[in-house]
Amino acid sequence: MDNIEKILSFIVEVEKLKNVHRQTKPVGLERFENSAEHSWHVCLTALMLKDYANDEIDINRVIKMLLIHDLGEIDAGDTIVYKSETHDVKAQETAGINRILSTLPGEMSKEFLELWYEFENGETADARFAKAIDRVTPLLHNIHGGGHSWKTHGITKEQVFSVNQRIEKGSKELWSVMRNKLEDAVNAGILE
Amino acid sequence: MDNIEKILSFIVEVEKLKNVHRQTKPVGLERFENSAEHSWHVCLTALMLKDYANDEIDINRVIKMLLIHDLGEIDAGDTIVYKSETHDVKAQETAGINRILSTLPGEMSKEFLELWYEFENGETADARFAKAIDRVTPLLHNIHGGGHSWKTHGITKEQVFSVNQRIEKGSKELWSVMRNKLEDAVNAGILE
Repeated sequence: MDNIEKILSFIVEVEKLKNVHRQTKPVGLERFENSAEHSWHVCLTALMLKDYANDEIDINRVIKMLLIHDLGEIDAGDTIVYKSETHDVKAQETAGINRILSTLPGEMSKEFLELWYEFENGETADARFAKAIDRVTPLLHNIHGGGHSWKTHGITKEQVFSVNQRIEKGSKELWSVMRNKLEDAVNAGILE
Repeated sequence: MDNIEKILSFIVEVEKLKNVHRQTKPVGLERFENSAEHSWHVCLTALMLKDYANDEIDINRVIKMLLIHDLGEIDAGDTIVYKSETHDVKAQETAGINRILSTLPGEMSKEFLELWYEFENGETADARFAKAIDRVTPLLHNIHGGGHSWKTHGITKEQVFSVNQRIEKGSKELWSVMRNKLEDAVNAGILE
């Protein structure tokens, strides 16, 4: 198969991300979000908030990371952030991203796999900012949606503050604003 | 409202794009695509096919264009490409994008509105490539989905070839491959 055909097959394969359901509902909607529309949303969020990163970042690399960050879920499914660090889930996602990216032409496959690992490891400035952004949108869904996902999964305010404090590693200013919103959510009784 | 709060309000507002339904179904799914997941899909498609652009392009600008290209549909709704050039629809989309982007801080509002107009006008190399990519994914949906949208809307092969030939303005190689796939669709009887 020539390279353009390989890429078009990849483009059809990744459609499956539109059928991977997440744990929160978009603001105003009664259905759960899927990982494809989530990926768009975090790319746009990163682009608009880029000036609030703690360190100098390359927003174009951040967006590329976020475009591919959830592709491993096509095989592994989505897991709520409060439970996602188990060995089995990580192994499934890693196998998934390897399978999917391996269908691309060789050089591209290597480039995007490296970018995915960089995101997962979360150590570079770009990855820290991308990971911070990835945590913000589900918080907004809960804050504007009566804490629906927190309630369904029995997530406590201690868990929410502790897990999402990592936003600070990417953007202190953003965490400061989000922390205030979470405190408002506690005061409103939607986060206990 | 300070800038970070303005941006977070924008991020919540654009969630509405997840509820704008398009005219084709993602490959393998029984439901229609929404414009948010479509936006992710075309960004990823552009990124993977960037080396096939006719002219030198800035893929980062192309991706930014594609991240915002459909935001006007939040107010205007989606219109099938074969009917989208009416004055009324364009006026609604233009009013919509102006309303939505005007909620961003001033400089950002101006920057992204200019980018949106550049995409709409389709004259620069970046915009020509972005517009070419935007046409490819609905073709793949029809090709891999029994021509469902062509049939529903009574779209003829003459219309499909004539409207989509514009892909050539962004990428001759991509149009050549897609034209072959469309000819296969005609031979298979799913495009008449």
